[in-house]
Amino acid sequence: MGTVGKALDLLDLFTRQRAQVGLSEMARLSGLNKATCHRLLTEMESRGLVEQVGAAREYRLGPAVLRLAALRETAVPTRDAAMPVLQTLARATGETAHLSLREGDKLVTLAFAYAPTHATKVMMEDADILPWHATSSGQAVLAFLPEAEQVALLSHPLRRLTDVTETDPARLRARLDDVRAKGCAETAGTFESDAQSVAVPLFLHGEAAVGALGVAVPVSRMTPERQTLIRRHLALAATEIIDLWGGHVPPAVTALWQRLT
Amino acid sequence: MGTVGKALDLLDLFTRQRAQVGLSEMARLSGLNKATCHRLLTEMESRGLVEQVGAAREYRLGPAVLRLAALRETAVPTRDAAMPVLQTLARATGETAHLSLREGDKLVTLAFAYAPTHATKVMMEDADILPWHATSSGQAVLAFLPEAEQVALLSHPLRRLTDVTETDPARLRARLDDVRAKGCAETAGTFESDAQSVAVPLFLHGEAAVGALGVAVPVSRMTPERQTLIRRHLALAATEIIDLWGGHVPPAVTALWQRLT
Repeated sequence: MGTVGKALDLLDLFTRQRAQVGLSEMARLSGLNKATCHRLLTEMESRGLVEQVGAAREYRLGPAVLRLAALRETAVPTRDAAMPVLQTLARATGETAHLSLREGDKLVTLAFAYAPTHATKVMMEDADILPWHATSSGQAVLAFLPEAEQVALLSHPLRRLTDVTETDPARLRARLDDVRAKGCAETAGTFESDAQSVAVPLFLHGEAAVGALGVAVPVSRMTPERQTLIRRHLALAATEIIDLWGGHVPPAVTALWQRLT
Repeated sequence: MGTVGKALDLLDLFTRQRAQVGLSEMARLSGLNKATCHRLLTEMESRGLVEQVGAAREYRLGPAVLRLAALRETAVPTRDAAMPVLQTLARATGETAHLSLREGDKLVTLAFAYAPTHATKVMMEDADILPWHATSSGQAVLAFLPEAEQVALLSHPLRRLTDVTETDPARLRARLDDVRAKGCAETAGTFESDAQSVAVPLFLHGEAAVGALGVAVPVSRMTPERQTLIRRHLALAATEIIDLWGGHVPPAVTALWQRLT
């Protein structure tokens, strides 16, 4: 791995729960020695990508990421463009709607919207990484990727997150055939035991999925009628978002989604 | 300069006007050879920081910057927190309000808001880099930095952007004494000949400014009354933003701003 990759991997150590990381912890988490960590962080700090704060001089993400994100949104309106559709989807289904994007070998939550309807709802974390095998979003994307990529993304050991998480790659890949035939993925209790979810893939210019749009429902509230309603609204919302992104839905998927609506 | 710094500097070649850059242009703009550029870009691409698009395989900023920005906003609500205040400031003054943050040796526009009042207004570009010497925002920040940093930031050749841009570092530094004494900076036609602007520094935890809040007005509309009104609203809005950021206004500045309101 190159120096730049090593430096950028340090940025992934920041999470919502761990917004600040000290140098020693950075070294421990990354497996790099402290001197290397310090050198990489200092270079990133000089460009505003990280900054040091507080008496302990811990590191956190710096202001440059905001400027870069603003530029990216100007060039490719993604989050800003999808946000109103996501809010409409949450209102229409009465449930939590969320959008995730693929970044290399990760699937990352980009945005979500809650419905005002119910006191109980599935809570999402901004910028969380979704496990490919255990989420409907992950399966929706996987099903619409070339086989070689499916295999690669499922080649890491798959964690059993609940009693019903499928961790066998072969059985998972068989399930993906199903998802591909339906144009949407559904999971129940495989990521968190009390949540059920439905997701459809999102596309940009090609046949390969670039992300997913999902709706998550507390298990206690899911009914066949609600599931049908959610599938229909997901197909409509996904079409709208892809259109706002200036992309297009592959014709085969359009045909599948017409059956859902 | 280290490899990481070189790679990150390539990201600065993307601007609002130049959202996509081909490899050859990247090499030309950066002064690096094509092989080096390609290696650095490939490493950044594998982490989602850039991506290649179109038949020409040009590079643009990648989706990872959105995730990093969402994490940064969760840890340090900056743009999201300031946005409503910025909108109120634009409405209250009837003019364009903007917020910039210092990133190393650059001052970068993070957000802006237009007033609905007038058909003519000063237009801002998202993510533009503001020249320290020629803008009221630049001068507001410089005036509240340690002398060594002022000298360093003004040590590059200063470009004469209009007929009245001050480009002599010594005379500029004398002007900064004035800004420091008043708690706000005012420029007329030094950046764009038909725009006048007023700005106050923004602070977080220390005595050194971290950015600026400004209001820009077409020269034709500026009057002493409007200037007084803008100064007052700027002092109030800056106090509110710093409070929302969890920072504090240095006591000496609070005293100055009380005279403005």
